[in-house]
Amino acid sequence: MKTNMSQEELKKFLLHAPQARIIEYIENIHPVDILDILKEDEENGLDILSRLPEHYIASIIDEAEPEEKYNLLTSFSENRQRNIIEEMASDELTDLLGMLDETQANKILAKMTEEDARKVRQLLSYDPDTAAGIMATEFVCVKAYMTVKQTLRYLQDNKEEIDHAYDLYVVDDFDKLKGVVTLKELVTTHFDTTIGEILQPNVETIPFDMDQEEVGHLFEKYGYLTLPVVDRVGRLLGIVTVDDVMQILRDENTEDIHKLGGVGEGEKVNGTLKESVKSRLPWLFVNLLTAIFASAVVGLFEGTIEKVVSLATFMPIVAGMGGNAGTQTLTVIVRGLALGELDLKHFKKALLKELGIGLITGVSIGAVIAVLGYLWEGNIIFGAVIGIAMILNMIVATLSGLVVPIVLKKMKIDPALASSVFVTTFTDVLGFFFFLGLATAFIHYLV
Amino acid sequence: MKTNMSQEELKKFLLHAPQARIIEYIENIHPVDILDILKEDEENGLDILSRLPEHYIASIIDEAEPEEKYNLLTSFSENRQRNIIEEMASDELTDLLGMLDETQANKILAKMTEEDARKVRQLLSYDPDTAAGIMATEFVCVKAYMTVKQTLRYLQDNKEEIDHAYDLYVVDDFDKLKGVVTLKELVTTHFDTTIGEILQPNVETIPFDMDQEEVGHLFEKYGYLTLPVVDRVGRLLGIVTVDDVMQILRDENTEDIHKLGGVGEGEKVNGTLKESVKSRLPWLFVNLLTAIFASAVVGLFEGTIEKVVSLATFMPIVAGMGGNAGTQTLTVIVRGLALGELDLKHFKKALLKELGIGLITGVSIGAVIAVLGYLWEGNIIFGAVIGIAMILNMIVATLSGLVVPIVLKKMKIDPALASSVFVTTFTDVLGFFFFLGLATAFIHYLV
Repeated sequence: MKTNMSQEELKKFLLHAPQARIIEYIENIHPVDILDILKEDEENGLDILSRLPEHYIASIIDEAEPEEKYNLLTSFSENRQRNIIEEMASDELTDLLGMLDETQANKILAKMTEEDARKVRQLLSYDPDTAAGIMATEFVCVKAYMTVKQTLRYLQDNKEEIDHAYDLYVVDDFDKLKGVVTLKELVTTHFDTTIGEILQPNVETIPFDMDQEEVGHLFEKYGYLTLPVVDRVGRLLGIVTVDDVMQILRDENTEDIHKLGGVGEGEKVNGTLKESVKSRLPWLFVNLLTAIFASAVVGLFEGTIEKVVSLATFMPIVAGMGGNAGTQTLTVIVRGLALGELDLKHFKKALLKELGIGLITGVSIGAVIAVLGYLWEGNIIFGAVIGIAMILNMIVATLSGLVVPIVLKKMKIDPALASSVFVTTFTDVLGFFFFLGLATAFIHYLV
Repeated sequence: MKTNMSQEELKKFLLHAPQARIIEYIENIHPVDILDILKEDEENGLDILSRLPEHYIASIIDEAEPEEKYNLLTSFSENRQRNIIEEMASDELTDLLGMLDETQANKILAKMTEEDARKVRQLLSYDPDTAAGIMATEFVCVKAYMTVKQTLRYLQDNKEEIDHAYDLYVVDDFDKLKGVVTLKELVTTHFDTTIGEILQPNVETIPFDMDQEEVGHLFEKYGYLTLPVVDRVGRLLGIVTVDDVMQILRDENTEDIHKLGGVGEGEKVNGTLKESVKSRLPWLFVNLLTAIFASAVVGLFEGTIEKVVSLATFMPIVAGMGGNAGTQTLTVIVRGLALGELDLKHFKKALLKELGIGLITGVSIGAVIAVLGYLWEGNIIFGAVIGIAMILNMIVATLSGLVVPIVLKKMKIDPALASSVFVTTFTDVLGFFFFLGLATAFIHYLV
């Protein structure tokens, strides 16, 4: 936080200082810090909020999660709601309305000016997971014939409407984007130069229907601070800014991490028991099917295990190590696919690499476990069987860890979500099969 | 890319168009796109680079990974190197020098102006994983007594030195940071107002030794575009910008995902076989220890398995499902810890929640597997044993998935790295122990 106050001090200040003092000081406090206090202390929340200026309450609601926005807003009187809504950003209002049913949404829309309501209705019509779904419609347009000085005067005269200043845009009479002037260019160019002379005509734009994750990767790759969103004929619809993009990337990363860990969508670390069970139980049942399938393979070899019961002792090692090796490969591959870093033009090279990793790690781990098996059972063939099974399973593991996510991606199935189930099935089923199958083939040397 | 050319067309253009045409058009091409071409086609790389203007080559090297920068730079003649270095950003030069041995580094330093070399030497003295290690020293300072108009004139006159314009800083005679003026404020304020009137005196600053991951989370939480870095007495040292932060956050996320998947540091999806084996084999050996430990537990019960060989068939299910459930919990907890979202003040609540999840999922999965066990063996006690073992192990799984990462974090061990090994050890060892232990206790009903 910008202020030197601790959260506790800040809370005391907001609850007990004279309102005039709060209003004077409030610009030194980041709205996110007030949100933290409200989450922490629901009891005093209303007291704190009621003493803040409306434009500041709007910025708190702007920063809140979509599902919190409505409760925050509706804790105020109808009249204050109207004023707060006036100060809110169009994209945040859209997020709020997107969470509501029609009756609630219409109530909020009725409190907006006609112009704002039209804007927000338009924004609501876009898919929320696309560029248009995350863009804001607050941007600044200028004319190519204006000089730098005239442009600055225009910005000075319209200060109230300008929340954030990013780039300035030049559009033609049909709203088609003709160019962009960065603020850096504006402040470093002589007063008499015209916008037309400094505008960059080749503007990187985002199509309105680009997936938000793709938008995120564009920002990440090129280091943009803001990008304009255009419709199919190149008309400027809005802008996406890097701070919104960071939230999206963070949520996408969390989702990918959760999926890799076999946790379904929508689970939050501070969520309810019911949400957690709902997100996890289905995946446990999918894994149960896999486990039953693997067990059925073991069941086929009960006759062999009956003769050499030590096989049961070493079973978990072969399958488990295969599972670990498979998880390693698929983790690297799934992340590489998510970041667009995996070069599929060189698939054969990647395949050979994973084959090499499987072979090297398989021989290393296999050698150790073969010696251990020999010492445990006092039978060199027992050691050889488990060692060879380990090598084979490690190769299966690394190859399936590579191939499964790529095939899923080609089939338009999210590789983060489903790879692990398939890879574990391969390593479990084939791990048991190699180990117990080899043992059955060489059973005369084992008993 | 800003240009409409495909990568193939762009390459042809850069190789075959007249140089004058390239220099005229180059500002429409993002350096990152040229980097992609260079990576793709090493053969023609030098040809392409040699035709580009030096300030543009500098921006390509600025965008390259630290380990690529040196090769790119040293592909030019000594003279051109000097010019390119002149145009490079101080933080990127520091990254480059950080990768070199002393002799190489001194050669590069010798090519800089004295002023730049001093700056870079200073930057090299900071820990590269801290705020000071990632900051740039290119920032703009203005005086409080200057008017907006004078400030704009100053920026216009110094255009060449200003690469990016973010916020403007006001410092006192001792370089102590006194306030910040955003570009938005500058362009929306009337010409005759002084900087002193519009500067924000309470500036959020980053201490120079703050860990870069913490810096990343600050930007993510508050949506900053840039933050000033100060030393212990509040002197302005440099600035950190959001585009650098995004790279850091992306790398940290990749690292966390890799660690959760049991992959060591430094593995890249397009890296070499040797790097992969080096990052993975140590973790496989750690897992091998775990697996041997679990097998030893099974070994204790070989006598029981000999009597009821079907136990071997169901063994993998109990341990495997526990492993899955444990991974689910630890994934959510580790990610929550990484984002600072997990509220440890309510640890008891979290514990009760995971206990509930373990119980509910355990009973659900346990019931199914009990019926299956009964059908397979035709013995209701066999079904009960496996069902109860499953419930117990699921509870162990969810509780250890919560407690292990939190304890590791308290012990200053990275929870992403080590949680999985411990949780799997618990679920494997205790899973086998519950299942085979119960079977041994009720062995008279099973044979």
